[in-house]
Amino acid sequence: VGVVTGDGTLLSRLEQPTDARRGARAVLTDLQLAIRQVQDSLGRIEGIGVACAGQIQPDTGAVVHASNLGWRDVPLGPALRETFSVPVAVENDVRAAAWGEFRFGAGQGAGSLVTVFVGTGVGSGAVIDGRLWRGAGNAAGELGHTQVVAGGLACPCGQRGCLEQYVSGNGFARRLEQAIATGAATRLADLVGRDPSRLTADMVSTAAAEGDPLAREIWDDAIRSLTMALANYVTLLNPEVLVLGGGVLDAAPKLADLASAGVLALTTPLARASLRIDRARLGDWSGVVGAAALARER
Amino acid sequence: VGVVTGDGTLLSRLEQPTDARRGARAVLTDLQLAIRQVQDSLGRIEGIGVACAGQIQPDTGAVVHASNLGWRDVPLGPALRETFSVPVAVENDVRAAAWGEFRFGAGQGAGSLVTVFVGTGVGSGAVIDGRLWRGAGNAAGELGHTQVVAGGLACPCGQRGCLEQYVSGNGFARRLEQAIATGAATRLADLVGRDPSRLTADMVSTAAAEGDPLAREIWDDAIRSLTMALANYVTLLNPEVLVLGGGVLDAAPKLADLASAGVLALTTPLARASLRIDRARLGDWSGVVGAAALARER
Repeated sequence: VGVVTGDGTLLSRLEQPTDARRGARAVLTDLQLAIRQVQDSLGRIEGIGVACAGQIQPDTGAVVHASNLGWRDVPLGPALRETFSVPVAVENDVRAAAWGEFRFGAGQGAGSLVTVFVGTGVGSGAVIDGRLWRGAGNAAGELGHTQVVAGGLACPCGQRGCLEQYVSGNGFARRLEQAIATGAATRLADLVGRDPSRLTADMVSTAAAEGDPLAREIWDDAIRSLTMALANYVTLLNPEVLVLGGGVLDAAPKLADLASAGVLALTTPLARASLRIDRARLGDWSGVVGAAALARER
Repeated sequence: VGVVTGDGTLLSRLEQPTDARRGARAVLTDLQLAIRQVQDSLGRIEGIGVACAGQIQPDTGAVVHASNLGWRDVPLGPALRETFSVPVAVENDVRAAAWGEFRFGAGQGAGSLVTVFVGTGVGSGAVIDGRLWRGAGNAAGELGHTQVVAGGLACPCGQRGCLEQYVSGNGFARRLEQAIATGAATRLADLVGRDPSRLTADMVSTAAAEGDPLAREIWDDAIRSLTMALANYVTLLNPEVLVLGGGVLDAAPKLADLASAGVLALTTPLARASLRIDRARLGDWSGVVGAAALARER
């Protein structure tokens, strides 16, 4: 929870684990208590913006589906509106982050921007002609589920060859899991104590540099597929700014640097000439700042 | 040249070969004569819209570069404005077609639309939130130069693996040319009298169905790559309507059908649920109708 002023300044922050296993009701109650705490210290809040990883009903702000939280049809927006009687905006977290970076971060003053976050998964948000584009079915920006290899690695979404399988925390872990299952020799297995969920992008990067064959394969695939997906995005949308962020790129900044260089080499000359590539300036808080701005604008 | 009313009706048409080899001045003179002819028969025209294959300076309507015409820096818009003293809009042909389909064709009433034309090359135009998106550098929509195969076939643009090498008139011809050069046995060589530029999508489709190995390879690559590129476009932008058109798809409608079915199978469930796929309703005239609408709106 952050207190955000009209000019996007983060006045105070409160961090607390979600612990979603307790169920939606408990999480909602905690959230309301945290907001109440902030409200009491301020006297008054003008609105509430929420950045939530998941699919949001754009009019009501209800959470249609949030797989990380295990939520389906949770009335997040309506509950907050009822409790606090202020304007409430609930937005998908990566789209909120795109709006935060557009209004107050790396995209300030630009007319268009694409934000790509590579973390547990891969998400993106696009601001086109100064407006956040949500898509006809509120589904725009699913970069993680664009195909980079026809008939490639299986993805839990049911498709094959999705970008997310080649470059994301989940994708890295899944490849290590399979390698361990088939008895492949790799330093990565020892580094994570044979628990693939503990794998980090930094481990992959370091082991690849040291010549570990699996790590090198994962690393090379990650660079190639991220570069291709980003370059295609830029070639199609021709945004003024491409903002890169997320846990994987924070842990392995070399991946962001190599992909950025690759994008400039692979996209069309005109798209390249008008492009600026930057890191997310608001870091982990871009979603909060963006959601606050969306609530204010509402 | 077409006479277009305010509601997008094409009142009359005049068709004439460009014969660009004569140079820009001769083409411009012909164009002015043709417009004059139309103007004289009508008494008055409210504006002139031009759909031109190439890169257009958005403010002036000058042609920056049009490789098919061999033009560089031709003051098309300014010349027409000076001669006719009416509002003039010059737009890239595929973008004009997208606007035509959006206003008066397959996308009428929709909020967003992506139009993809597969002909000599591959072009696309996107209408997002009711507005034609040109990109930060006027370079948006270059679907033909998105990569579908990392390190794939060389493209004259300097990159490798561009969609246009796998599915377009030029791409088909180039593959046949290379096959003939390396002495590959294929019916296609006989069908075109060993002149690859005479190859049509229909020949490829028919020869593939009859089991010709090269034709089958070209055909399968075309389906796979077009499907992947379209699905990724839809997954990223989540448009309400995807409009398919162009000479290759007109000559081989099965390619459009197979790619459409593939898009529905490969894109995300939410993007698919809100998507309608249609053929260009205004056919070859969508660019003219769209350019006229842009001139009127200007």
